[in-house]
Amino acid sequence: MGAAILSETLAEILIPVAAVIGIVFSLVQWLIVARVKLSPQAPAPSSKSKNGYTDYLIEEEEGLNDHNVVVKCAEIQSAISEGATSFLFTEYQYVGVFMVAFAILIFLFLGSVEGFSTKSQACTYSKDKTCKPALANAIFSTLSFLLGAITSVVSGYLGMKIATFANARTTLEARKGVGKAFITAFRSGAVMGFLLAANGLLVLYVAINLFKLYYGDDWEGLFEAITGYGLGGSSMALFGRVGGGIYTKAADVGADLVGKVERNIPEDDPRNPAVIADNVGDNVGDIAGMGSDLFGSYAESSCAALVVASISSFGINHDLTGMLYPLLISSVGIVVCLITTLFATDFFEIKAVNEIEPALKKQLVISTALMTVGIAVVSWIALPPSFTIFNFGVQKAVKNWELFFCVAIGLWAGLVIGFVTEYYTSNAYSPVQDVADSCRTGAATNVIFGLALGYKSVIIPIFAIAVSIYVSFSLAAMYGIAVAALGMLSTIATGLAIDAYGPISDNAGGIAEMAGMSHRIRERTDALDAAGNTTAAIGKGFAIGSAALVSLALFGAFVSRAAISTVNVLSPKVFIGLIVGAMLPYWFSAMTMKSVGSAALKMVEEVRRQFNTIPGLMEGLAKPDYATCVKISTDASIKEMIPPGALVMLTPLIVGTLFGVETLSGVLAGSLVSGVQIAISASNTGGAWDNAKKYIEAGVSEHARSLGPKGSDPHKAAVIGDTIGDPLKDTSGPSLNILIKLMAVESLVFAPFFAKHGGIIFKFI
Amino acid sequence: MGAAILSETLAEILIPVAAVIGIVFSLVQWLIVARVKLSPQAPAPSSKSKNGYTDYLIEEEEGLNDHNVVVKCAEIQSAISEGATSFLFTEYQYVGVFMVAFAILIFLFLGSVEGFSTKSQACTYSKDKTCKPALANAIFSTLSFLLGAITSVVSGYLGMKIATFANARTTLEARKGVGKAFITAFRSGAVMGFLLAANGLLVLYVAINLFKLYYGDDWEGLFEAITGYGLGGSSMALFGRVGGGIYTKAADVGADLVGKVERNIPEDDPRNPAVIADNVGDNVGDIAGMGSDLFGSYAESSCAALVVASISSFGINHDLTGMLYPLLISSVGIVVCLITTLFATDFFEIKAVNEIEPALKKQLVISTALMTVGIAVVSWIALPPSFTIFNFGVQKAVKNWELFFCVAIGLWAGLVIGFVTEYYTSNAYSPVQDVADSCRTGAATNVIFGLALGYKSVIIPIFAIAVSIYVSFSLAAMYGIAVAALGMLSTIATGLAIDAYGPISDNAGGIAEMAGMSHRIRERTDALDAAGNTTAAIGKGFAIGSAALVSLALFGAFVSRAAISTVNVLSPKVFIGLIVGAMLPYWFSAMTMKSVGSAALKMVEEVRRQFNTIPGLMEGLAKPDYATCVKISTDASIKEMIPPGALVMLTPLIVGTLFGVETLSGVLAGSLVSGVQIAISASNTGGAWDNAKKYIEAGVSEHARSLGPKGSDPHKAAVIGDTIGDPLKDTSGPSLNILIKLMAVESLVFAPFFAKHGGIIFKFI
Repeated sequence: MGAAILSETLAEILIPVAAVIGIVFSLVQWLIVARVKLSPQAPAPSSKSKNGYTDYLIEEEEGLNDHNVVVKCAEIQSAISEGATSFLFTEYQYVGVFMVAFAILIFLFLGSVEGFSTKSQACTYSKDKTCKPALANAIFSTLSFLLGAITSVVSGYLGMKIATFANARTTLEARKGVGKAFITAFRSGAVMGFLLAANGLLVLYVAINLFKLYYGDDWEGLFEAITGYGLGGSSMALFGRVGGGIYTKAADVGADLVGKVERNIPEDDPRNPAVIADNVGDNVGDIAGMGSDLFGSYAESSCAALVVASISSFGINHDLTGMLYPLLISSVGIVVCLITTLFATDFFEIKAVNEIEPALKKQLVISTALMTVGIAVVSWIALPPSFTIFNFGVQKAVKNWELFFCVAIGLWAGLVIGFVTEYYTSNAYSPVQDVADSCRTGAATNVIFGLALGYKSVIIPIFAIAVSIYVSFSLAAMYGIAVAALGMLSTIATGLAIDAYGPISDNAGGIAEMAGMSHRIRERTDALDAAGNTTAAIGKGFAIGSAALVSLALFGAFVSRAAISTVNVLSPKVFIGLIVGAMLPYWFSAMTMKSVGSAALKMVEEVRRQFNTIPGLMEGLAKPDYATCVKISTDASIKEMIPPGALVMLTPLIVGTLFGVETLSGVLAGSLVSGVQIAISASNTGGAWDNAKKYIEAGVSEHARSLGPKGSDPHKAAVIGDTIGDPLKDTSGPSLNILIKLMAVESLVFAPFFAKHGGIIFKFI
Repeated sequence: MGAAILSETLAEILIPVAAVIGIVFSLVQWLIVARVKLSPQAPAPSSKSKNGYTDYLIEEEEGLNDHNVVVKCAEIQSAISEGATSFLFTEYQYVGVFMVAFAILIFLFLGSVEGFSTKSQACTYSKDKTCKPALANAIFSTLSFLLGAITSVVSGYLGMKIATFANARTTLEARKGVGKAFITAFRSGAVMGFLLAANGLLVLYVAINLFKLYYGDDWEGLFEAITGYGLGGSSMALFGRVGGGIYTKAADVGADLVGKVERNIPEDDPRNPAVIADNVGDNVGDIAGMGSDLFGSYAESSCAALVVASISSFGINHDLTGMLYPLLISSVGIVVCLITTLFATDFFEIKAVNEIEPALKKQLVISTALMTVGIAVVSWIALPPSFTIFNFGVQKAVKNWELFFCVAIGLWAGLVIGFVTEYYTSNAYSPVQDVADSCRTGAATNVIFGLALGYKSVIIPIFAIAVSIYVSFSLAAMYGIAVAALGMLSTIATGLAIDAYGPISDNAGGIAEMAGMSHRIRERTDALDAAGNTTAAIGKGFAIGSAALVSLALFGAFVSRAAISTVNVLSPKVFIGLIVGAMLPYWFSAMTMKSVGSAALKMVEEVRRQFNTIPGLMEGLAKPDYATCVKISTDASIKEMIPPGALVMLTPLIVGTLFGVETLSGVLAGSLVSGVQIAISASNTGGAWDNAKKYIEAGVSEHARSLGPKGSDPHKAAVIGDTIGDPLKDTSGPSLNILIKLMAVESLVFAPFFAKHGGIIFKFI
């Protein structure tokens, strides 16, 4: 076997150091963004400091020093920030109740496995050793669930705070040029990315070390309890994504349907009563929801890897460095992303609109290339040359370079998914242009082409995932798949940065419109936003791809823990699980889409009512009642997030308890292979429609101009497509990857209970 | 074990007798329909004969004896009939080439298993016996493939002939009342239903008896070769469904987009150049395509049952009566459907529009109830009290009443699926009314609600299928599933009758419009058509449900033949198959939807060109150039049916040869569990949109009137939904059930080759 080059002490030091570096870096970025002042007296310093640029940027004709505009921006920003904060607090109150209830459930289920006995027991895998009692697992699983849940909530909240801090600053910087606006938005994204990645790593590291004080040498028990962290993270993410997604899309769809379609006023026009709700929505859905989501993915893939490692030679031989390999990969990831970020913020400079997408693509390529080196180094120094990995009952010999390939293939599969997603959702390529072209014949062909595009965009990502699974499984069994997922998420800080900058730009555009700023500023933020739609789709691609891998790894861990040797499709118990599992994403999507639709209908009625009853509103003489619209979105999202949330959270419990672990295995496999397809196609279809509309609006090419301008029939058709895409790409699509991961991690956490007491119905037959 | 009550000779007599009864009955129905004369001299006799009615029907004010109208109807009918015939001939030429090429492929692949040796060999399952050489299997599989293909083509062709014979007659009868029109359309549907069911049964029966002349006691080889019949039937059905689906929807979408949306002329207006192509499309897509499809399902479920029976005690003990149990079930089905049909045509009478749907529902309930008795009788007299069924290597003891439950649960699951489909697609219930209501806020909310409705409609059918699978598999292994599928299809004659009457009514409405007949006639045919949309969706529900069962049975037979003991999801070879298989329906749908979209774009351009360049066209002074539109649809469908066809036909060959039987098993399971969901949701979404539009147009309730009339904004939004639904419900949706069955039956036919030579890639790694 041999030992790793990296000593245990050094490994224990390196991880928190990397986390602290990430946090410090994000604070530095925050300070730079904060130099853009939102008070009218100080516009000069920020234009003098030049933010690392060597040339002066194009200045707007209408004067940088218009105090009124700056004051207005600050006002709107604080309205958005207050709305978002108040919504998140309301949401967290409800989610908090759920959190406590579910924590009790975990304790009761897991505690009851051995009848709440405090006696030590034989270990599950190493039968000859003695492990901590099942009650300890119940207590520590509950604790780590709460820890994961709180970290997830904090991640979402911080993301929202940063985004609402950055949006108006991006607007102001857009007056100076598209490059300045881009860099402000991107730095803000980086603040969020690094804070979340570092925070997630640090909390996990601290939790492991604290739990070890009790568990001592019982690593099997320790890391089984740690999986609660993933469950906590993902369950909060589910509510965040669904609640936030319904909020933002109800407001967006409602605002667009009356404002853009009926009243023919521009997007984000301050006369539209739903405009504040719409901008709040971007922050609670696309930012806070996404932050929770990616934190959940990260937590789960780490937990999946750790739990498998604990029953492999790392755990059996108490090789701490090898054990912490997943955390070391994440640590290196933070450093790699830090260097990558400098390429966008300091080494190069964006001057024109058409440089944005290449710059973002470069971020992906650079981070992937550097990370490959990073993985190689970590695999070389942190792993012994040879070790064994648990593989459904037997130990499989694995070499360190084989594990390198597992992580690397996940990482590169992520890049492939990213590029394919970009190809299908960016309006620089023919797929979106074809969709835009189909608007000539109306909304119907636009929808048909858009749906077909989404279906088609599934092909290559699925092959990429399939190849990753085959290679990493062949090399290192389930552990290989878990670290492949980790590889895909290792550049999460960069991923989050480029993902978050989109909604920030969207908000910046909204603020510009509401503050009555020049149309040119809007054009710039729209260009940023168009690239942002693509990066959002790429981010979702990563989230879905990694979700597929991580839920397979969790599934494998669940099967091992539940002591099933095979999951045979030809067994009727498994097959009915498979087909019902494949149905769940449809059920879930039906709920979330209907929720968005119903909430949007209410919003439309309210907006129409205000236009009809408030005199002078259309003329801009009276102010609309923004608060009622905010309330409609809030109420709808809180009420409507419960049924889909319950579906996902209760299914594993009901199936496991009533039908047992075999059927549950089928459900997990079915929802995985079916959900991943709907998730990819929904998010790409939505992204493509949004960008087809932006393509017509921007009118950059001869072809695009022939379809425009705004208000033309093809443009109207494109707006309809965009509206349909909203719930697909921002509510049901991105929630689906949480569905598949969450059911898997929940099954894993409850596996001891299901293995002991599950399958009540079949026991009676 | 004991022996069956029914003697072998009697069983051999009963089957052809039932088939002949079915054929005679369909001829009688045809004669009754033919009494409606299409020549002007003889309107009187048909109104005097009263077709079994006791009251005279409401007569139109504008005179029954308008010779011009009748002449015009006859002209239009012959134009549609010629168009459909010419398209089918073109299609069959291309398909014929494929058929020959694929037949050669089958011969070469299967012949090569033992190097084209003519030596007898040990049997696959009963190793101690001697069976016919592999070369014989190659020859007879090829023969039965050709037989299935030809029967399928003939089925589709006959269906089209009957439908184009009946459409104008339905129009003429609609002048007398909705009841008369209904009965004419329904009788014509029955002609098709009985002819196809009886024909499929008879050909299979004859083939088995002829093959037995060579095979003698080698039943294992005999029924292995017979599975080619299913493959032939389904592969033709695929091209029929895809080609016909693209044809009909390109014409329909193209005609609607310019005619209804841009030019504001009614549907089927004779000024619309695409109107003939649209009406031809109904006959080649919804009728010929569906006929081939359901014939394929029937052939495959019979073959799946037979092949499993041949390696169970029926085959081993050469118990012919037991062996022919699947055919006896179908024979009884014909008789049961015959009685059921009389309830619609002779025992009761429809007088008002709102009686149509209940009458059709009654058909389903009566046939199911009677068939339950029929199954009980057959199971009692044709099966020994106890026997054994092959179950992945072992023989499982089964009692005759257990097999009764298997068939019955399939039958009743079909009824449940039918009712759920009706609930979600009929505008008598709230789901469609909600979708119609969402049109208030435009096309976008209509699409969101429609998609959500389709997703939701998947839930109960999947549970029904899951329960059927669990029960029938638990009772009688794979054979149980095969006969459950057969049970669902046992009332196929009634199913086809109520399915076919929709497109016939649709055509009848088109002819009324084109012949310039009274608006009231159109209202009547529209009412028939609205019920027809629902029955079409129900028919698709049956087709999909039975496809899920039959492909699982075929899958089981394939796994047995390929000598795999388990299909373990946790094996990476299987899992990559599973996830890629789940992706295939998306790939396939992307192709077919894009094809419809592109073909529709071409059609739109041509229709626009004609409106713009032919002077006097809009004023009705000049005749449009119908032939060019027919040609566009024909060319597009022939060209575009090849890629999706190739995807489905080549995937099992490529996967089996390169990756082997384990990965192929994964692909089959994945495409099954994923495809069934998309198929159900696509066909229900499309049906719901169509009926939401019809709901607004009909304006029967207060609510419906508040959304209308034709041309209002909500109605325009509803038309967009309807257009989007067209390719979903009539092209990609119904083709998907063929995809899942066809890949399964193809894998089964090629199983001997894959088992021997498959998995080249993994052999090299």
